[in-house]
Amino acid sequence: MKQLQGLQDTFEKALEELELPSEPKFLYEPIHYTLSNGGKRMRPLLVLIGCRIFNRSMEEAIHPAIGMELFHNFTLLHDDIMDNAPLRRGMKTVHEKWNNHVAILSGDATFIKAYQELMKTRIDVLPDILTEFNKTALEICEGQQMDMDFETTQNVSIDNYLKMISLKTAVLLATSLKIGATIGGAKNDQAQLLYDFGLNAGIAFQLQDDILDVYGESQKVGKQKGGDIISSKKTFLLLKALELAKGQDADSLQKWLASDSELEKVKAVTEIYDKLGIRKLAEDCMWEYYNKGISTLNQVHGDAEWVGTLRAFSENLMHRES
Amino acid sequence: MKQLQGLQDTFEKALEELELPSEPKFLYEPIHYTLSNGGKRMRPLLVLIGCRIFNRSMEEAIHPAIGMELFHNFTLLHDDIMDNAPLRRGMKTVHEKWNNHVAILSGDATFIKAYQELMKTRIDVLPDILTEFNKTALEICEGQQMDMDFETTQNVSIDNYLKMISLKTAVLLATSLKIGATIGGAKNDQAQLLYDFGLNAGIAFQLQDDILDVYGESQKVGKQKGGDIISSKKTFLLLKALELAKGQDADSLQKWLASDSELEKVKAVTEIYDKLGIRKLAEDCMWEYYNKGISTLNQVHGDAEWVGTLRAFSENLMHRES
Repeated sequence: MKQLQGLQDTFEKALEELELPSEPKFLYEPIHYTLSNGGKRMRPLLVLIGCRIFNRSMEEAIHPAIGMELFHNFTLLHDDIMDNAPLRRGMKTVHEKWNNHVAILSGDATFIKAYQELMKTRIDVLPDILTEFNKTALEICEGQQMDMDFETTQNVSIDNYLKMISLKTAVLLATSLKIGATIGGAKNDQAQLLYDFGLNAGIAFQLQDDILDVYGESQKVGKQKGGDIISSKKTFLLLKALELAKGQDADSLQKWLASDSELEKVKAVTEIYDKLGIRKLAEDCMWEYYNKGISTLNQVHGDAEWVGTLRAFSENLMHRES
Repeated sequence: MKQLQGLQDTFEKALEELELPSEPKFLYEPIHYTLSNGGKRMRPLLVLIGCRIFNRSMEEAIHPAIGMELFHNFTLLHDDIMDNAPLRRGMKTVHEKWNNHVAILSGDATFIKAYQELMKTRIDVLPDILTEFNKTALEICEGQQMDMDFETTQNVSIDNYLKMISLKTAVLLATSLKIGATIGGAKNDQAQLLYDFGLNAGIAFQLQDDILDVYGESQKVGKQKGGDIISSKKTFLLLKALELAKGQDADSLQKWLASDSELEKVKAVTEIYDKLGIRKLAEDCMWEYYNKGISTLNQVHGDAEWVGTLRAFSENLMHRES
């Protein structure tokens, strides 16, 4: 993972050099605040790794990598308003620290900055990467709308849930890899293999998130364990339980979903999950997606060492405990 | 103006062919709703005229024209949330008809669609028009933030007000013309002349809006006369009056600004404007910008007939009564 640390350092250094005006301050301060708030920088690292798999240099990928991080931050700024989230990465969200209007507009500005950075690359790949990016950006909006729609939908199928997390989360990881590969000079079929890997691995990462919310080590999660249960969020686990629970279990589950209690609700719903073997089912589904991704990754003809870095990076995410 | 009618018909026809998915419906229905809500289509017409001034065909400009209309609609969707506006073009705003979340997300999707349409043009001009567009989009965010900041700023100077309307409104008209001209094959200095015309004329149009709010024919305005006065909006007229009013007039103006009454407030503030000759001062400023624009337009070496169409289009806006 030494290679990865090198990439991370390169990225952080480049990000520090991103120039933003100081005025109007309510437009630009929140962008600084959000960017300095850290995060895993997954998307830009995937751009850089994608490029490195096909090219020794990543000079032409560094600004698009910043663009993908900016775009991700834009989605968080707006999603946090819609999800009414008070905290992000342990710090106040922009709409909480300032207000909704500031979060809307600085989000819009972040989005535009994303395009500006994305464009700073080789002109011959510009149409391809922008077309790819626009398609993905629209899919992410669709995923976010589906997620919101699910809150008031009675019967959400597992298939629709998987479609939602694919759109809301996985396509951006997939596209980050593909854009990096394209800048690195990959042929379209090779870039598409990385996309397919990213898409399947991305779904697996989100399923892992769902599992960790209930079964993770709470100190490491850094947030309240069982938060999804408390808010009755329709995760893979809950949807699977709703599908499988019969008789008294089904009644009990419905009763707890309507409950306002927190610790008791988490305990009771987790017991139902345990009884139905939900954790195992979720993990099976997760590994199925992940392994499908890996089998695609194995078909990539690129720098073996960097393919190995990508695999290690992903394994790391799969074996995290929070 | 027959030429203009032809452009309008071409544009509406092309817009009807814009394909949008039907699902998720809360994402895409508001985009249909906003687009079908009409409006003057100024920005796309300026793209098409800008192109026509330099090129007989406007085939390559039609999608970018749609892009500029989509972008304008995106700004309205988000601005209407921030301005808490209940109506737009006589119909409920999206955040009123649906809710804020729908307006935020369908706004974001509209913005992405704008990029998609903007990209459907000649590849050789793509970097130039996207660079121009991104710069302008960011300026518009800055203008909107300045406008919001003014609400809570004690002393707004006329210079800052002019800067704000330049950013919030005029740069988009300027850029529409420039993008059209660039697609039409104009050299950069010629495209820039159209930009400069659009910028100055755009400032004049906004000053005209400020004047019409107070002195327009209310039936034609289609909205409550003196709306800016009722909300104590810092327009050119109010800022000029605050600058010039002395003694009793200054006290009276301050008193009325703090008042909740509507008709009486409009009447009283208008009387102060009249006493101070504000209308004439605003019109002088407006014509100064407009004439500066026209002198730039006169330097354009392009199809004389289409330059004439642009001039007629602008004169029309300058002599409107609402």
